[in-house]
Amino acid sequence: MITLEDLNPKLLQAQYAVRGPIVQRAQEMEAAGKKVIYCNIGNPQALKQRPLTFLRQALSLLEYPELLDSPRVLETFSRDIVTRVRKALERHPHGTGAYSQSPGIPFIRQAVADFITKRDGIPADRDRIILTDGASKGAQAVLMALLRSSQDGVLIPIPQYPLYSATLALYGGRQIGYYLDEENGWQLDEHILRASVEKAGRAGTRPVAIVVINPGNPTGSVLSRDNIEMIVHFAREHRLSIIADEVYQENVYDRSASFHSFARVMEEMRERDTTLFSLHSVSKGFLGECGHRGGYLEIRNVPEEVNAQFIKLQSISLCANVSGQFATYFMVAPPEPGEESYPLYVREREAILAALKRKAEILGEGVNRIPGMSLDKPQGAMYGFVRFELPPEQGIDPLSLPPEDRKMYEAGRDEAYCMALLEQTGICVVPGSGFGQRAGTLHFRTTFLPPQEEIEDLVQKLKVFHEHYTRTLQEA
Amino acid sequence: MITLEDLNPKLLQAQYAVRGPIVQRAQEMEAAGKKVIYCNIGNPQALKQRPLTFLRQALSLLEYPELLDSPRVLETFSRDIVTRVRKALERHPHGTGAYSQSPGIPFIRQAVADFITKRDGIPADRDRIILTDGASKGAQAVLMALLRSSQDGVLIPIPQYPLYSATLALYGGRQIGYYLDEENGWQLDEHILRASVEKAGRAGTRPVAIVVINPGNPTGSVLSRDNIEMIVHFAREHRLSIIADEVYQENVYDRSASFHSFARVMEEMRERDTTLFSLHSVSKGFLGECGHRGGYLEIRNVPEEVNAQFIKLQSISLCANVSGQFATYFMVAPPEPGEESYPLYVREREAILAALKRKAEILGEGVNRIPGMSLDKPQGAMYGFVRFELPPEQGIDPLSLPPEDRKMYEAGRDEAYCMALLEQTGICVVPGSGFGQRAGTLHFRTTFLPPQEEIEDLVQKLKVFHEHYTRTLQEA
Repeated sequence: MITLEDLNPKLLQAQYAVRGPIVQRAQEMEAAGKKVIYCNIGNPQALKQRPLTFLRQALSLLEYPELLDSPRVLETFSRDIVTRVRKALERHPHGTGAYSQSPGIPFIRQAVADFITKRDGIPADRDRIILTDGASKGAQAVLMALLRSSQDGVLIPIPQYPLYSATLALYGGRQIGYYLDEENGWQLDEHILRASVEKAGRAGTRPVAIVVINPGNPTGSVLSRDNIEMIVHFAREHRLSIIADEVYQENVYDRSASFHSFARVMEEMRERDTTLFSLHSVSKGFLGECGHRGGYLEIRNVPEEVNAQFIKLQSISLCANVSGQFATYFMVAPPEPGEESYPLYVREREAILAALKRKAEILGEGVNRIPGMSLDKPQGAMYGFVRFELPPEQGIDPLSLPPEDRKMYEAGRDEAYCMALLEQTGICVVPGSGFGQRAGTLHFRTTFLPPQEEIEDLVQKLKVFHEHYTRTLQEA
Repeated sequence: MITLEDLNPKLLQAQYAVRGPIVQRAQEMEAAGKKVIYCNIGNPQALKQRPLTFLRQALSLLEYPELLDSPRVLETFSRDIVTRVRKALERHPHGTGAYSQSPGIPFIRQAVADFITKRDGIPADRDRIILTDGASKGAQAVLMALLRSSQDGVLIPIPQYPLYSATLALYGGRQIGYYLDEENGWQLDEHILRASVEKAGRAGTRPVAIVVINPGNPTGSVLSRDNIEMIVHFAREHRLSIIADEVYQENVYDRSASFHSFARVMEEMRERDTTLFSLHSVSKGFLGECGHRGGYLEIRNVPEEVNAQFIKLQSISLCANVSGQFATYFMVAPPEPGEESYPLYVREREAILAALKRKAEILGEGVNRIPGMSLDKPQGAMYGFVRFELPPEQGIDPLSLPPEDRKMYEAGRDEAYCMALLEQTGICVVPGSGFGQRAGTLHFRTTFLPPQEEIEDLVQKLKVFHEHYTRTLQEA
């Protein structure tokens, strides 16, 4: 019988806080009949967000095309959806039941290219688009392809979405953390990037790529166009590929911010030398179709033989799930004005986005009113990365500890805090140490996905809990 | 801009013949308007196999549960399907739109455990079942977890399904090939296994696991119970984990053969020391739902902390696609006698299996009538691994070549053969070298999935082509 010693040590090291021990405890509590508010994961439909009608009508027809021939089909399904599904099945007669071409169904790859062109006003090549099982698999494919040896490293933001750190650990690459600037709306800072690369160089690490998450997870920030230009210049100077995780591109709430894709900024800079991998997904935005695991990877500025290697990599596990590919199709080619399903589509989309915006505000304003807690009001994405202060523990001076011990100590503090929050209030959030945070700071990540009244309740409970928790620590 | 030199050399080395250059050429020919018979891949619904009605009705309702409330739902959907989908949504209210728990939806894991118990009469533990995006992802997870270093090797059959060789190359493990015994119905031979392990040991390779594909891909063989017992003893003796790829368990056509799961044989042997990973999928059998990427991995004989590592690995890319999880549910819990959908389910299932059986016979008998060609009549799975002879080429004595050069030379011969077959007949098969074959032998793998008349046509065309091709070689 195999034991832990028989397993890949890289697997043993990989950590994935978003689904770690706190979530497991939450599931136990729920199984025991307690109410849990899951704010640990960007999983909208688990938090009562309803799916978009047009998308689900389309997927339902695709699964059982016999419905198309029912004389009453138009009583239930919009005319344009019926027409579109018919056309989709003409172009791809195998429907959802057969493996597709490895990089995805050709007409859907074309639709993705058209979407990029329409979004950004730039050309896009369907042959450089690979349909993936959600953005995670796309990111993992890129890391698998770019890591040549255990000396290779990838710049990842701190705080970051732990997919990146976990996958780097798993694939035997090195993390090169760069801090996001909390005092400056979590933008990237060129001096910090430079210092991170230099530090990596001194440790014998060769940087091969930089991951940028925009809008940010867990920070909820939206990068400015200037900031993106700076990153492109920096990547070019250091010969880094850019991995642009842009899954929250539709989730921008702040009027002063807008989403700029890396593809567009690079195209406008006429940057042809730096390789770009950009990721998108049906899981976020206003679709929130996490369960369908649909998404795409777009590759720019690589020779054809490099592109072919990515397609080969995809072919080894055959293809992305086909109903997820169709979900991606309907994301990039939604109903058009004048079509029967359009008004409802717009209504549903706007309601979801407006609710998210309102909840971002409620969370931002509420948290900032709690003494000892602060939050950069989320401009985008689905998260707030809440900073909180705890009184020092008697007899412990974290500054006297060696850096690794200090990190462990602080991780222990935010984990204990989040576990106590769960036990006392049923609110499930993720400790900041799971994403990385500056020494001497404590955070947790919370989504603002639950219904509005639960967000209001969350803010209230958080306040009471935080006061009680800090008082208990002070009295200890 | 990155070039091939910037890519992971392991990716560059990985090969995946099932979707290699011959398939690309076939797609070009098809795009140019020529008819291609795709026998390269086990993709039933791309070859006109129709999906099972009950499964698609269920998935259609799950995608758009509003249908359940339609007063006319029972005009289109079977009553038991409607009830089952309602119940499924009570147990898992998020439906297909939310991430599930990382190892899968709990009630579906339980249904898989019940299926194993019913199939084998043995206990099964739902906590040791992980729902995966098809069996491929399950196999890849196991290899990722078991390879501790570049000295670790996995025994894989020759010929084998190239998922295993490609993934080992990608993850930096070593292949330890063991030949299947073509003269003995492609069973495993203990002496050959032993010799393979010894040879690996001399090369400094540490064997950690053995992959067994039963029923066989590409061989179409079904292992006897004795053969499986031998493998279990062998694995135990060498402390190997067993990776049992059992995705073709429903595809047994020969009356003299039956499927024995490793789980059952090991349970009956009271084998508690050897770790077993077994894989199943919705892609094969009589469902043929390749596009849905559903499947499961069952893990036996590991301590709980090892199981937890597999769940963590799954959590890094969140969860398997949820409609694929539901497809797995309906595979393991099909309609029961007395339910409205049962008679049609049985009719559809039996028609598909009977047609496959008939086509296996037509292929087997037809090929064996072609001079210079032979085939062990497929007992199971969806493939025939056809052996063919070519006249020697003037001035070339393969026996005089060093082993690697000889392999290259013979691979070149079967590739040229398959490419010519495609160009001249539109039949797309995979060269035997893509699966591995004994030196001095040539093969190709063909599925017997196309409609019966196309299989008959295929046999006829193959005969004409083979005669012509060998004559041309002789005259050259």
